[in-house]
Amino acid sequence: MATARRARLSTDARREQLVALGVEMFSERPFDEVSIDDIAASAGISKGLLYHYFPSKRDFYVAVVRHSADEMQAVTETDPELAPLARLSAGLDKYLEYVETHARGYSTVLRAGIGSDREVAAIVEEVRSAMATRILDDIPGGEPSPGVRIAVRGWVGFAEAASLEWLERRELSRDELRDLLIQALTGAIGAAASHYAVR
Amino acid sequence: MATARRARLSTDARREQLVALGVEMFSERPFDEVSIDDIAASAGISKGLLYHYFPSKRDFYVAVVRHSADEMQAVTETDPELAPLARLSAGLDKYLEYVETHARGYSTVLRAGIGSDREVAAIVEEVRSAMATRILDDIPGGEPSPGVRIAVRGWVGFAEAASLEWLERRELSRDELRDLLIQALTGAIGAAASHYAVR
Repeated sequence: MATARRARLSTDARREQLVALGVEMFSERPFDEVSIDDIAASAGISKGLLYHYFPSKRDFYVAVVRHSADEMQAVTETDPELAPLARLSAGLDKYLEYVETHARGYSTVLRAGIGSDREVAAIVEEVRSAMATRILDDIPGGEPSPGVRIAVRGWVGFAEAASLEWLERRELSRDELRDLLIQALTGAIGAAASHYAVR
Repeated sequence: MATARRARLSTDARREQLVALGVEMFSERPFDEVSIDDIAASAGISKGLLYHYFPSKRDFYVAVVRHSADEMQAVTETDPELAPLARLSAGLDKYLEYVETHARGYSTVLRAGIGSDREVAAIVEEVRSAMATRILDDIPGGEPSPGVRIAVRGWVGFAEAASLEWLERRELSRDELRDLLIQALTGAIGAAASHYAVR
């Protein structure tokens, strides 16, 4: 039993190593240009062994996206004791630090591909939904109105698009971008909450 | 020569028909679930003839996205004589009408797929960039600052994300969503233009 457990742990560890390698590879090159042969060669293992861990290149890609999503969720965790605005600011600092240090992977996942993949779309949706929920939970006054919910989901798209644009040229400092994101969010929530026409 | 011209025209017309069919098919089902056989069967032509028009399923998909992008650009054209705010409002009315009537295709192109495809990403980027440029061109005072440019690009992401969320539940009217988008844009531009920290 001890042997079986060791073998299991080492399988998990190897799987993790492969996923870390995948994060690197898919950040450098588009999916179509990374072959199973390349991955196996970079990992120093046989194609057969690689297929033992991941039945297809798509499965491998999904595992890489899953890993990146979990990592982003984990690094952007903030102290729930902070006041809402301080918490938003701290969360955005961590978000933008992640975006900056994982620039290529971030751009790769968010750029349009051929068709859509249910599993990848579900993971990306999960990250967006978690970002929105954290913010909505910090807005006082019970269940947010549909207008406020749409404003917050819209702002998540704003944060992604502004980050991608920022990565291209870095003309603002990270702190300036964070401040712009905060103002865009408070402005959008304020508009949705106060405007009579928006329920 | 007249015969050659007729043949050419009919080739273009047939190609257009196939693209229109593709818009329907890729809106209903994900890329991976639409086979070349399905497409040929729906079009009532042989696989061989389909390959004559489009060398691969990917080429066909790219043509469909290209067509949708051109269509969206064309329908959201607005009268350049209008005042900036009226023009923005008119453009958004047309944008949201397009989003509503092409809901499935809009969601399909914007949802995450496996990896990213340079050609599809370039088309999507072209649409986003054109939306941002129309708005930036209407802001008085010469070359916009980097902060304003990032705010407008961020807002294009806001408009997409808010539209996708809206399509899910339709809890706001189209006019209410348009007003929310206008307020989010003017708020974000105002913040970027006036805030000292944001250049």
